Amino acid sequence: MKEANDRLVSLVAFRDLASYIVTRGRLVDDALHRFLPPATSHPAIIHEAMRYSVFAGGKHLRPLMVMASAEAYGTPPEDVLPVACAVDLIHTYSLIHDDLPAMDDSGMRRGRPTCHIAFGEAIAVLAGDALHALAFELIAGAAGVFGADRTLAVSREIAGAIGTAGMVGGQVFDLLAEAPARTFPGGTLPPERPLSEVVREIHTRKTAALIRASVRSGAILAGAPPVELDGLTLYGDRLGLAYQIVDDILDVVGEEAKLGKPTGSDAAKATYPAVFGLERSRQIAAELTGQAKDALAPLGPRGEMLAALAGYLLTRDA
Amino acid sequence: MKEANDRLVSLVAFRDLASYIVTRGRLVDDALHRFLPPATSHPAIIHEAMRYSVFAGGKHLRPLMVMASAEAYGTPPEDVLPVACAVDLIHTYSLIHDDLPAMDDSGMRRGRPTCHIAFGEAIAVLAGDALHALAFELIAGAAGVFGADRTLAVSREIAGAIGTAGMVGGQVFDLLAEAPARTFPGGTLPPERPLSEVVREIHTRKTAALIRASVRSGAILAGAPPVELDGLTLYGDRLGLAYQIVDDILDVVGEEAKLGKPTGSDAAKATYPAVFGLERSRQIAAELTGQAKDALAPLGPRGEMLAALAGYLLTRDA
Repeated sequence: MKEANDRLVSLVAFRDLASYIVTRGRLVDDALHRFLPPATSHPAIIHEAMRYSVFAGGKHLRPLMVMASAEAYGTPPEDVLPVACAVDLIHTYSLIHDDLPAMDDSGMRRGRPTCHIAFGEAIAVLAGDALHALAFELIAGAAGVFGADRTLAVSREIAGAIGTAGMVGGQVFDLLAEAPARTFPGGTLPPERPLSEVVREIHTRKTAALIRASVRSGAILAGAPPVELDGLTLYGDRLGLAYQIVDDILDVVGEEAKLGKPTGSDAAKATYPAVFGLERSRQIAAELTGQAKDALAPLGPRGEMLAALAGYLLTRDA
Repeated sequence: MKEANDRLVSLVAFRDLASYIVTRGRLVDDALHRFLPPATSHPAIIHEAMRYSVFAGGKHLRPLMVMASAEAYGTPPEDVLPVACAVDLIHTYSLIHDDLPAMDDSGMRRGRPTCHIAFGEAIAVLAGDALHALAFELIAGAAGVFGADRTLAVSREIAGAIGTAGMVGGQVFDLLAEAPARTFPGGTLPPERPLSEVVREIHTRKTAALIRASVRSGAILAGAPPVELDGLTLYGDRLGLAYQIVDDILDVVGEEAKLGKPTGSDAAKATYPAVFGLERSRQIAAELTGQAKDALAPLGPRGEMLAALAGYLLTRDA
């Protein structure tokens, strides 16, 4: 308890947010290098493809959320690395599959060819599948420190967040919302729902569900009391939605800067900027970030770093 | 203990193998109907696609292995249904992804259009992903009966069996072996290995790994002692390989019956019949089945049903 309190004090004193993000990001990168099979082990091509997509310069937001919520309870970030890396692998798998020709058909991501361009479509499908499986193998490894009960709760939490009630369901809603450019035999959106509601549901499922699960997982491992876990759940939900909105705002702004003129709203895109415009989207993201911070009230000073992270994510420029 | 012994006696006395397979298959079918989200819940199309592929008349071999090995230790089959259904969902997800145009490009399976033909390629990718995630959610549900330690061991066991060391790795080897019809930038098979070894490795990973994990999972949940678990591991491995060989033999024989003439060996196919011919493949399958039965020796009479199942799988005609 004494040790946990000391950790908490040092965390609160740790005011350099940028340095927090950099050091934790390095922990995750190093751990991912250890956890992923070597690129040289057979069949090499799949391990190369997995590493190519995992080490593509992602921001490690989801692992950061696992670590920061565990650290709020005095748990060392190193201890939760298997779960922190697992949510990063899951995020990467979802990007690989989203980029496929049959889905978003994206040829570039983060300035590099996407996985299916670099390794072929078959290997890209399988690299995603392998990362998905490896994530659940990694999660199980957390039991050495946290015991089987908490670890299994986290495994269930994350599995639930990425199925049709969460990440995959959001992706399906997204595809349907961007129809009729595509054909989905029998696929329809819930009828008579305003686009503003649909876009919220898409991003709550597609992005916020895994971010919320990441926040909750760190707290579950660290043994957070139920009322604080409720606060963290709301925090993860609002932060996750705000994160996606800011992402889509930055996309539009970046595109406009490149073109040297406003792109206008793209009605075929189910994003906040497309539906609400840039200015209103910025307001909504700020409101959600406020709600995320407010939800940390039950944590008191423990919640400081999580609140600082929410503020940083709102004002980031990349 | 008394109850467990009674169950064992009734199991051994239960000589009607066909009836065993039918009753257990019904248990699995009913449970899958309960565990899968209703086809009517939004987004409906993905739940329809998942159900379409899960209820396609599969033989439920993997769930049967989970139940039979648990029953060998007196555990009621109903108790292991979450895990039995999970391995069936994983098998189904792998078939959906294998059938994709970028992979095996199969338009029909079990006499019906494949998932991507019926629902579009994007939904097929996502239906596979959703079944994969749901499997790990289901597995966690076994903790209510078996406790978190055994349940987590099973979750790790299955995750390990379906990654690049197992199912996905086998699929990658398979794709590479059937090259150069396809292009895999940088993808090569381990050099200078005879095709007979390669084909064994492909099917050991692609098929036997999940079957072995299914056998082991039932036994782990039921608390099998280590030496018997070792026997079951070998049983699952040899049975899984024999199963795939018989499957490929039946394919060739079925094709010949349809054409009214021998198809000859298809050198582009990495199967036992293509590499060894039909007669030698039958011998190998029989040898492997013998090894599988022998591996059950440590179980004594407990192993009777598993041995009977191995015999049945060798001599099946569909």
